[in-house]
Amino acid sequence: MEAKTPEASKTVLTDVVLPGETNALNNLFGGELLARMDRAASIAAGRHSRRITVTASVNHVAFTKAVPLGSVVTVEAKVSRAFRTSMEVCIDVWIEDRQSGERTKVNEAIYTFVAVDETGKPTTIPEVIPETELEKQRYAAALRRKQLSLLLAGKIKPQDATELKALFD
Amino acid sequence: MEAKTPEASKTVLTDVVLPGETNALNNLFGGELLARMDRAASIAAGRHSRRITVTASVNHVAFTKAVPLGSVVTVEAKVSRAFRTSMEVCIDVWIEDRQSGERTKVNEAIYTFVAVDETGKPTTIPEVIPETELEKQRYAAALRRKQLSLLLAGKIKPQDATELKALFD
Amino acid sequence: MEAKTPEASKTVLTDVVLPGETNALNNLFGGELLARMDRAASIAAGRHSRRITVTASVNHVAFTKAVPLGSVVTVEAKVSRAFRTSMEVCIDVWIEDRQSGERTKVNEAIYTFVAVDETGKPTTIPEVIPETELEKQRYAAALRRKQLSLLLAGKIKPQDATELKALFD
Amino acid sequence: MEAKTPEASKTVLTDVVLPGETNALNNLFGGELLARMDRAASIAAGRHSRRITVTASVNHVAFTKAVPLGSVVTVEAKVSRAFRTSMEVCIDVWIEDRQSGERTKVNEAIYTFVAVDETGKPTTIPEVIPETELEKQRYAAALRRKQLSLLLAGKIKPQDATELKALFD
Amino acid sequence: MEAKTPEASKTVLTDVVLPGETNALNNLFGGELLARMDRAASIAAGRHSRRITVTASVNHVAFTKAVPLGSVVTVEAKVSRAFRTSMEVCIDVWIEDRQSGERTKVNEAIYTFVAVDETGKPTTIPEVIPETELEKQRYAAALRRKQLSLLLAGKIKPQDATELKALFD
Amino acid sequence: MEAKTPEASKTVLTDVVLPGETNALNNLFGGELLARMDRAASIAAGRHSRRITVTASVNHVAFTKAVPLGSVVTVEAKVSRAFRTSMEVCIDVWIEDRQSGERTKVNEAIYTFVAVDETGKPTTIPEVIPETELEKQRYAAALRRKQLSLLLAGKIKPQDATELKALFD
Repeated sequence: MEAKTPEASKTVLTDVVLPGETNALNNLFGGELLARMDRAASIAAGRHSRRITVTASVNHVAFTKAVPLGSVVTVEAKVSRAFRTSMEVCIDVWIEDRQSGERTKVNEAIYTFVAVDETGKPTTIPEVIPETELEKQRYAAALRRKQLSLLLAGKIKPQDATELKALFD
Repeated sequence: MEAKTPEASKTVLTDVVLPGETNALNNLFGGELLARMDRAASIAAGRHSRRITVTASVNHVAFTKAVPLGSVVTVEAKVSRAFRTSMEVCIDVWIEDRQSGERTKVNEAIYTFVAVDETGKPTTIPEVIPETELEKQRYAAALRRKQLSLLLAGKIKPQDATELKALFD
Repeated sequence: MEAKTPEASKTVLTDVVLPGETNALNNLFGGELLARMDRAASIAAGRHSRRITVTASVNHVAFTKAVPLGSVVTVEAKVSRAFRTSMEVCIDVWIEDRQSGERTKVNEAIYTFVAVDETGKPTTIPEVIPETELEKQRYAAALRRKQLSLLLAGKIKPQDATELKALFD
Repeated sequence: MEAKTPEASKTVLTDVVLPGETNALNNLFGGELLARMDRAASIAAGRHSRRITVTASVNHVAFTKAVPLGSVVTVEAKVSRAFRTSMEVCIDVWIEDRQSGERTKVNEAIYTFVAVDETGKPTTIPEVIPETELEKQRYAAALRRKQLSLLLAGKIKPQDATELKALFD
Repeated sequence: MEAKTPEASKTVLTDVVLPGETNALNNLFGGELLARMDRAASIAAGRHSRRITVTASVNHVAFTKAVPLGSVVTVEAKVSRAFRTSMEVCIDVWIEDRQSGERTKVNEAIYTFVAVDETGKPTTIPEVIPETELEKQRYAAALRRKQLSLLLAGKIKPQDATELKALFD
Repeated sequence: MEAKTPEASKTVLTDVVLPGETNALNNLFGGELLARMDRAASIAAGRHSRRITVTASVNHVAFTKAVPLGSVVTVEAKVSRAFRTSMEVCIDVWIEDRQSGERTKVNEAIYTFVAVDETGKPTTIPEVIPETELEKQRYAAALRRKQLSLLLAGKIKPQDATELKALFD
């Protein structure tokens, strides 16, 4: 099973914001963006693993900028690191101004997927070889996030989250 | 502005899983569940604050159990703690077996919402008074989560996340 | 097969009114509300019978109050009376004012469902034991409605609709 | 305001049954059919009145035949009788067998609509002149249905429902 | 296999334009209209052939008039000519003014469908017998369109497109 | 107004095929693909022109390969040539095999869009500078297609379609 670059799983989903997806301020519902990111990330995970993939977890996601009705939203997902049967997918979201064409980053999220066979049993997947500086940072941060995830799920003790603990020393 | 109980904002969204919402294993897409939880949580936040509310962030969410096509899914959301203009909403998700009627907890998530006026400006909201044991635990844990959130967003330094830091001492 | 209370089948579906569901006056389409009520009622019927259920009929439904775009709509369904293989489900619909939190009853409907097995053949279901005053009234009225339904379907003669006939004596 | 025939408001909505609209037996949800009928009937009411129209009530609807996934469903709506500001719309629903082309009547319903101006105030509408035998029967039956509707809504007393009362004499 | 008239396959799909289907000018998206025409045409092709049908091609379609939000749109499809296993479907689209009732033709398109068996293999279908003047014109033009289609697909040479070539002589 | 390359307007919409979008053979409806292509092409046209854009016409589109349920579909759109206020968008569609990752071209289409201002009036747009061999071919072919389009719309006479006429000489 040959290792792959994040670029090899890159998935782009560009689409507009329709009226049925907006709240009382005419901005995209947070939940709709979560669902779009899941679809793009799920395809990226499938491209990396060549398997059926299921969402295992969603990291902390902050919605810092509103996405107005009619916006063109670009969701870009890439597998950032693979563990044995699971993988982290980093998702970046931009909107662009129609007149100036300027792109604004509106969101960034990390989802984890598990690769499974037809019976739903986890299966091993290829490793990731990061290339760009950003990809290398995200690859490195993935272990810390995995520990945080295990910690929050109560699967490891704070003392064993070595990467995280180091942050506070 | 009178404080309210979590029960006062309780919002229940019961619905079935339709074919258009399922993946290759015939289970509910993670992203669809994230969107349903956002809708229920957004209504709970509105009930607590009596304001327009917008999703500010989503905490770590783990998908531990599959939700098969045709399942009856119950999403229950309650505001667990209010800060000045933002509030945490705890969401519990169950499915139930049609024949036995047995309920299985399939998910648990925490979303944060901000209350805003018609111009989108944050406005102050009532406090929360937890009643049950679980509500009290969630209320207590909220400050720790808020610090983690600020830490991950780079808005406070690890040294200032006192509640979190204590975990590692 | 043990009898059950209406409370045991209570199903709540709380959701907002989106732009794609509204008419030229920006109010919820009657047909959309009929569909939401059917989904909630169908789940209630499933909870009572622990069977697959199919809509058999819809009683007279009046739309007396408009449901504006953005409203939070609560649909609450409970099985009110069971016959051999069919059951009546009473559905109440409220909207609430965002600022005052005041609830307004906007609709009330009665749907009938039949419980079936995997081949679509009707199967017997548990009885209903009404508890509250309202549940008792609805239970009592169900027989009259059943006769009206049979009468309108031409399955019984006016003379045999004893409960109905009594109304006119 | 010139009277119109039912034919003048005839509205046909032919469409297929998609997977997202079916229940556990792979048949169309009752609620989906109610919504389709409302859309067709609403257009027919608009064609008769040349006004904005809103659903006022739905008469007893019986679902006697299942509508399987993939079926071609034809919903045909015609205004059957107009009162001062409201009108009855009769809706007939057929499915057809792909191979033989044979049409089967699967449903029949009566919806009532009110014509309103831009502020939502009821406005007067043209009368209906029935032409065919069926149209004449439906026209005649409309008054009886109106009385039943008023009776069930508690707006008239059983003794005043003269048309209905006659049925039991 | 008996020949059929275009009238025998006539399919009407009348529906309103909802907010979720409109662009920044509040007019129906071109793509949504293409999809509605495909659904109506697909049903017409099924009615003519009594087979499963799949879209084979879409002829040049021009969008000359905007279709505003809230419009009642009538899509009417009829099979205009059948070849061995494929058939041309002519689609006409109107909107109507609510107040005057005046109909405006907004589009006209030609889709080609292939009739297939359960395995997806093309099967022979009945011929078409045009009746009205317009049906006869469309029947005659179909061969020219088929040649153009084959020419554009590179399946015949310009010299062999005799009907088309004649246009330029 | 500076000329732009096709690459500058490149728009990618990657998404899966869901059950509600498939026909009796479990393949994507032609009409759904037409709608997805319209959305991607419309965004590409907006990126080139920095204006509101509306679909003006769709060229001949052939559906040569089926797109099965669950497929990952990549729609890629680029502006191929601009005229004064209108522009041609070339759209390529691929599906990929989950296990081998092999991409198969399933469709190719050309849509024309007009750039308009807020009142719907056509406005001038930048020119296109093709770079790759394929972009140059498509740029060259655009004039021929424009003539064909005008010819089919009856706006020019066959004799004046010089580019087309040359094909038959």
